[in-house]
Amino acid sequence: MSIENSKIKLTLAYDGTSFHGWQVQKDHATIQGTLQEALFKATGKELPLTGCSRTDAGVHALEYVCHTDFISIPCDKIPLALNAHLPPEIIVKSAQLAESDFHARYNCRGKEYIYKILNTHLRDPFLANRAMFYPKHLDENIMNEAAQGICGKKDFRAFMAQGSPVPDTVRTVQYCDVFRQGDIVTVRVAADGFLYNMVRIIVGTLMGASEKKLTKNDIENIIDSLDRTKAGATVPACGLYLNKVFY
Amino acid sequence: MSIENSKIKLTLAYDGTSFHGWQVQKDHATIQGTLQEALFKATGKELPLTGCSRTDAGVHALEYVCHTDFISIPCDKIPLALNAHLPPEIIVKSAQLAESDFHARYNCRGKEYIYKILNTHLRDPFLANRAMFYPKHLDENIMNEAAQGICGKKDFRAFMAQGSPVPDTVRTVQYCDVFRQGDIVTVRVAADGFLYNMVRIIVGTLMGASEKKLTKNDIENIIDSLDRTKAGATVPACGLYLNKVFY
Repeated sequence: MSIENSKIKLTLAYDGTSFHGWQVQKDHATIQGTLQEALFKATGKELPLTGCSRTDAGVHALEYVCHTDFISIPCDKIPLALNAHLPPEIIVKSAQLAESDFHARYNCRGKEYIYKILNTHLRDPFLANRAMFYPKHLDENIMNEAAQGICGKKDFRAFMAQGSPVPDTVRTVQYCDVFRQGDIVTVRVAADGFLYNMVRIIVGTLMGASEKKLTKNDIENIIDSLDRTKAGATVPACGLYLNKVFY
Repeated sequence: MSIENSKIKLTLAYDGTSFHGWQVQKDHATIQGTLQEALFKATGKELPLTGCSRTDAGVHALEYVCHTDFISIPCDKIPLALNAHLPPEIIVKSAQLAESDFHARYNCRGKEYIYKILNTHLRDPFLANRAMFYPKHLDENIMNEAAQGICGKKDFRAFMAQGSPVPDTVRTVQYCDVFRQGDIVTVRVAADGFLYNMVRIIVGTLMGASEKKLTKNDIENIIDSLDRTKAGATVPACGLYLNKVFY
């Protein structure tokens, strides 16, 4: 098989604040659209671009994977070549050759998200749009204990935005933990897949756990109810980061 | 003397990216203008507002001090009252009563600035507009050694933007040092006052010191020349942070 049949796997990072998510939209700047333009400027070709997931407007990525067709630029030069045409909010961190049947979304075995909460009495101008500001004290130990109820293979219908047209709502959460570093409380969760708004509803539920002193068992009961109204609020997009993509 | 004659000293922090500096301008958002609006919304009064310095467009502050007239809100409630009317890029960190003759600029004994350089081969989307990106390796030890030549009471005319109408160009630099934390090289400098663009020219000169292996003595010779063309380039505003204000 010739090298020209290979796919190119690109690993990105981006500050999603000023983008309307990953997927190309008419009249709105998106990550996919911006990267496709950079690919065109660097190669002179309209190349297809497939991402590992659709991220919502305002969501960030510390690691995001997408694939495109073969490019006749050596892989170690691709980041420089594309970054020269990208705005400062998006970078290509690395590029690798992949099999001809590599697919950024279908081959993805799992993803890890983190969610950052600024938990102190004063806002931080340098975390505007990069963390949720929540001045009321959160108990990260109660949250972490409750988070263990999220883990495992379960029907997460209660943690999905209402009206999502997804027939199979069973997902496996590999781990979910909560920790504090200074004023930042971070929720970290990995799963084989996520329902629409699932991470943001998990975080809202765990914040409620801190206030209502919910246990692991209470969280399991919320999941078992399959009832969206039993889970917590959907927290804002700005605190959410796609952190790792597993293949 | 009645309390109504007191001044109110406000300590701010701000991300200066989307502002045209401190000072009110027609047709441009500025920190002073935005804070004056917030003061009006919180008190119903048009209050005067005097800052400790004019910061340039794109420059940030981790600590900035300004004063205004007495406000009949308890000092510990002023941050909350004003922050409710401020955009997420600006916060009032604290408010204090000050003497009736307190003046944020004239009483200021000195200021400390820091300048952040992202010194690695890849940009960081989360440091866009918050650090200067410089991929060529910098030797922070050479820079720190050279920085010692900046310290002392000297005529800094060589480190002032050309054409500045300042008759007295003598300033006292209390300390200047350079250190690395991971990929971030930070220059820190404190003085009783700064000439226009002085910090940004010091940083450009110290970066040149790394490349040309300049010593403390070479830096002293540049200062003694009083010749702007002997010093280094003016680095971009985005890496500059007002860090401390001394009274």
